[in-house]
Amino acid sequence: MVVQIPRPTIERLPLYLRCLTRLASSGVEVVSSEELGNLLAITSVQIRKDLAYFGEFGRRGVGYDVPALLAQVSQILGVNRSRKLVLVGVGHLGQALANYDGFREHGFNISAIFDADPNKIGLTIVGQRVMPAHRIVEIVPQMGAEMAIIAVPAHAAQKVTDALVQGGIKAIWNFAPVRLIVPDHVEVRQENMIVGMLALSYYLAQRER
Amino acid sequence: MVVQIPRPTIERLPLYLRCLTRLASSGVEVVSSEELGNLLAITSVQIRKDLAYFGEFGRRGVGYDVPALLAQVSQILGVNRSRKLVLVGVGHLGQALANYDGFREHGFNISAIFDADPNKIGLTIVGQRVMPAHRIVEIVPQMGAEMAIIAVPAHAAQKVTDALVQGGIKAIWNFAPVRLIVPDHVEVRQENMIVGMLALSYYLAQRER
Repeated sequence: MVVQIPRPTIERLPLYLRCLTRLASSGVEVVSSEELGNLLAITSVQIRKDLAYFGEFGRRGVGYDVPALLAQVSQILGVNRSRKLVLVGVGHLGQALANYDGFREHGFNISAIFDADPNKIGLTIVGQRVMPAHRIVEIVPQMGAEMAIIAVPAHAAQKVTDALVQGGIKAIWNFAPVRLIVPDHVEVRQENMIVGMLALSYYLAQRER
Repeated sequence: MVVQIPRPTIERLPLYLRCLTRLASSGVEVVSSEELGNLLAITSVQIRKDLAYFGEFGRRGVGYDVPALLAQVSQILGVNRSRKLVLVGVGHLGQALANYDGFREHGFNISAIFDADPNKIGLTIVGQRVMPAHRIVEIVPQMGAEMAIIAVPAHAAQKVTDALVQGGIKAIWNFAPVRLIVPDHVEVRQENMIVGMLALSYYLAQRER
C-alpha cells in the first residue's frame, strides 16, 4: 500500500532528517515527540501526526526509536544512497551552490559542472573542471547523473533543460526565472527567491496593522 | 476582524501576486479561477478557497476583479510600499542575492551592504559601496532599514544578528546554517538550501518504488 503523504508533511521531512541525524550521531536512541517538538519548534501533536505516516516507530510513554525512524525518513527522502547531480551555470549563484556543504553531507555529489561562457570553461570549482554547455548531452549519460541544478540566465534555461533531459536527467532544480517545459517523467522544482522576501514582508505588514 | 490565513495559503500569495501583476500589466481586468488555475498549476477549487480569505472579489460566472485583487494581495504581502533592506556578506551567495532583479521589482531596495573582509570593504556592488560590518549598529538606523539578509559564515551570523537588531532591523532572512537568537519582535526566516534538493530526491525515490 502506498500511503499518500500530505505536502506540508513532506516539506517537514528534511527538518526531521536533519534533527534525527544529529540525535543519532550523538548516540541518542529514543526521543519523545515533545523533545523533537522543542528541537524543531513544531507542536508535539503535529509531530505525532507527521510521523504516523511512516509507520509504527513510537512507543507510548517511551518515545521514538531514533535509528529506525532515521532509516525510514532517509529512505522516503531517497537519501539512503548517494545521487549524482550536475550543475549548469557558475555565476555567483552557481558557485554558491557548488560550495554548499549540505549537498555532500546528504549524499548529493556534483559529478559535472557546465557553463557556456568561454571565460569560465576550464576553471576548477570544487574539484571539477567547468565543461562547455554544448557537451551536456554527451557527458551527462556517461556520468549517470539523475539530478541537475540550473543556475543560468532565463534566456538560456530551456535549451539547457532540453539537453539535460536528452542526457537522462530526471529531476531539475531550476533557479532561472522561467517556467521550464519538460516531459512528464521529469520533475522540476522552480526556485523563486522572492518568496522568502515576501514571506518576511507579510509578517512585517501584519504587525503594522 | 483579523482573519487567520493558513500558512499554505500565505506561501501561495507570492504566486498570486506575480500572476496578477502580469495580468494587470497586460490590461486584463477580470480573470476566472479556472484561468488562474491554468496559469499557476493550482486547482480552481484551491484558488477559490485561497482568495475567499481576502474578501469578496469574485462574481459568479464572471470572475475576479484583477486590479482590486492585486491591490489587496499587495497590501497583505506588505509590498504596497517600498521597503529598505540591508545585506550582510558578499560572498558568492550575497552577490547573487544583491544582483537579483526580483527584489527591486517588488519594492525591496538594498540601502546598505556590509562585509567583514577587508578585501571586500570598499567594493561597489549594485551601486552600493561595501561597508565594514562593525559599522552596522551605526549605519542601519540612519538608513531606516527594516529588513536584512544575512549571507555570512555560520560562526559570524549571531554577532551580525545582534548588531542588526540593535540597529532596528525587524525581519531577517538568514542563509547562514545556524539558528539565530532574536527578541520576540524580530521575525527570522531560516533558509535551508538542502530542502529543495531533498524535495526533488523524494520524488525520485517515489518513482523508484
